[in-house]
Amino acid sequence: MARWEPDSRGRLARAAFALYSERGFENTTVAEIANRAGVTERTFFRHFADKREVLFGGAEQMQDALVRAVAGAPASAPPLEAVAAGLDAAGSLLPDSSVARQRQSVIAANPELRERELIKLASLSNALAGALRRRGLDEPTASLTAEVGMAVFKVAYERWIDERNARDFSALVRESLGELQSVTAVSSGLPQRAPEDSNL
Amino acid sequence: MARWEPDSRGRLARAAFALYSERGFENTTVAEIANRAGVTERTFFRHFADKREVLFGGAEQMQDALVRAVAGAPASAPPLEAVAAGLDAAGSLLPDSSVARQRQSVIAANPELRERELIKLASLSNALAGALRRRGLDEPTASLTAEVGMAVFKVAYERWIDERNARDFSALVRESLGELQSVTAVSSGLPQRAPEDSNL
Repeated sequence: MARWEPDSRGRLARAAFALYSERGFENTTVAEIANRAGVTERTFFRHFADKREVLFGGAEQMQDALVRAVAGAPASAPPLEAVAAGLDAAGSLLPDSSVARQRQSVIAANPELRERELIKLASLSNALAGALRRRGLDEPTASLTAEVGMAVFKVAYERWIDERNARDFSALVRESLGELQSVTAVSSGLPQRAPEDSNL
Repeated sequence: MARWEPDSRGRLARAAFALYSERGFENTTVAEIANRAGVTERTFFRHFADKREVLFGGAEQMQDALVRAVAGAPASAPPLEAVAAGLDAAGSLLPDSSVARQRQSVIAANPELRERELIKLASLSNALAGALRRRGLDEPTASLTAEVGMAVFKVAYERWIDERNARDFSALVRESLGELQSVTAVSSGLPQRAPEDSNL
């Protein structure tokens, strides 16, 4: 198998995800991943620092895209609109939803990977708060808005990888933002919902 | 020094926090903590499983208090009101803000502790989502509301430990909820509410 095969990164990622799903992240070796992808271990290490990076390698680009889109939103856009633009940009870098689903089940099965995922999300939230401050938003509003944006991101992402939905990530972001607005409006002292909505 | 001294837990915690601040978490031993508190190592281990638990020992009680308060909120209370009641109950278990401030700077200085803190917050968020589902809230609204509640908690907490504020945690929760409502209302395209409507 040619080592200069142009899509070796993609094939390595697919091989890794399949192996992590079949036998667990901790029981998979780099040699096995390279072997299944039909490349050498050296080729693996040209693309990824270690087997964990196959799962988290895109985090930095996603953060950059998020920050750039927030910065690039019209100056007149309210903060949550700028956040939505950032989430859309980050979402455009997501892999196919079936790949994302596989990735998520690998992460869910391993405490160390779950921690790494939490750190990634906290880092995205900090970057988002920074981007909002550079738009002129004061603290603590910037951090609050960033955390709320990440809440929307997480919920939209979970719906997006749910195979019962076959929905566009961007549409799910908008839908979750709409729900956020209903939830916050309801508790603001606006008219209560009918009792049948609030049965325990 | 009497080993059955009733406040040995409190003295051990204060000694640990002081030592972690002075020389760093990783450079402090249990023997040193026990020594400064004037008790034996055995007494330390009667109160804490290890030196990390001094920092995270109250997490379970806080989660229980949060869940109980959400469950106990009136059936008619909108979700975010139930969340506010939960955050108040969790907040009532917080230590003195100067102790919390010391704890926070110890955690901020150590990557392993920062991870542990993220895991604690994620666990609180899951517990909160579960409590909201038991109130009849559907998914994904329950998870979204829980994540938003945790965003409010984090922001209120950071303001509370800021020594320039000398504010009640509960008041900061209400203030952050009000800001959340302004942020979400602004981007909804709805007419802005008057400021006096945005307090819960």
